[in-house]
Amino acid sequence: MTPIITAFERSPDRGRGLARDMRVRWALEEVDQPYDVRLVSFREMKKPAHRKLHPFGQIPTYEEGDLALFESGAIVLHIAERHSGLLPEDANARARAIAWMFAALNTVEPPIVELSMAKILEREKSWYEERLPMLEDRVHVRLGELSDRLDDAEWLDGAFSAADLMMVTVLRRLDGSGLLEKYPTLCAYVARGKARPAYQRAFADQLAVFTAAKSPD
Amino acid sequence: MTPIITAFERSPDRGRGLARDMRVRWALEEVDQPYDVRLVSFREMKKPAHRKLHPFGQIPTYEEGDLALFESGAIVLHIAERHSGLLPEDANARARAIAWMFAALNTVEPPIVELSMAKILEREKSWYEERLPMLEDRVHVRLGELSDRLDDAEWLDGAFSAADLMMVTVLRRLDGSGLLEKYPTLCAYVARGKARPAYQRAFADQLAVFTAAKSPD
Repeated sequence: MTPIITAFERSPDRGRGLARDMRVRWALEEVDQPYDVRLVSFREMKKPAHRKLHPFGQIPTYEEGDLALFESGAIVLHIAERHSGLLPEDANARARAIAWMFAALNTVEPPIVELSMAKILEREKSWYEERLPMLEDRVHVRLGELSDRLDDAEWLDGAFSAADLMMVTVLRRLDGSGLLEKYPTLCAYVARGKARPAYQRAFADQLAVFTAAKSPD
Repeated sequence: MTPIITAFERSPDRGRGLARDMRVRWALEEVDQPYDVRLVSFREMKKPAHRKLHPFGQIPTYEEGDLALFESGAIVLHIAERHSGLLPEDANARARAIAWMFAALNTVEPPIVELSMAKILEREKSWYEERLPMLEDRVHVRLGELSDRLDDAEWLDGAFSAADLMMVTVLRRLDGSGLLEKYPTLCAYVARGKARPAYQRAFADQLAVFTAAKSPD
């Protein structure tokens, strides 16, 4: 059964591949599984029909037969557990890769999202200029720690895995902030992720949605 | 092999059970597995020996023979996958429980942590009073959505699972904020979690660490 995922009808990132459907698209491309996409508007996302799939009214969701999932981390883990190519075979290495997925989402992403949200919601506030460096410092702490750990390794723990997929998409949310550029190790790491053919197919597909939405058919 | 977890030598929560080792303790108690605890100071957490276990210099970590893990979500999932009692047997129900674990950590917890951090780091700032309601509103959005979904169910999706363990510990971080009290559904849900014998054993054990640390033996 071909799974169906949801994505923004009009992504606020204007096709830059920063929305969370990109993670699921990339994972499905890595394991070479076809999928269908249902686009949802911001209005639809908050309505009961979509909230039945996603209690917090967001994208992506994942439907496959009887199963409906939400949360990009859970969807990517589900795909990685059912197809080979995204998690190591060895049980301990597998547990470590899953630990890095949680680290990407629960330790590295929150200060990055916080910074992005302040840039959108607090730009006009009197405190914006004073508070911005505090937010950037918190991101730098995590980037420094991650860069130290990665060091000269190609991927986080052995071969490319769902952990790297998740971490690369989290780091990509810093696009345009100028913060990642201070860490050559991390820039090279993100570039390796983006160079993967599966990434490129996923990126092209999400960009096509944006391009189609803005053209007056 | 008895696993070893790490916890704060002196927990900043003063024994209220809000630190993330509580999640791992609770999970191990639910599946009736003994464990050892190694206490670490704030200084030790940031040193290379601990960072080898936890790249971001935090607690908890989990060591079991050759395996070393970090991130409370990953550790609880590892425990839940290897022992019965924390995840449903049915594959789809299992995937949904894991989705709720990610939702607790990546969707519900970040605005709660953000609010707690502002209360610590920004209390003396000129903007604190004006910004506080913005932060509280973001927490309320998630609490409202969670309360609507939970409705009159006992647990998030069928029987008690690692998803509830994670969500209850995330909601407990609102202790003392007065925010949770606006959602009787969620208060009753947290109370059900806290009433579990495994929770109570875990709570008593982390409290004993704090009590021992403050007595001048």
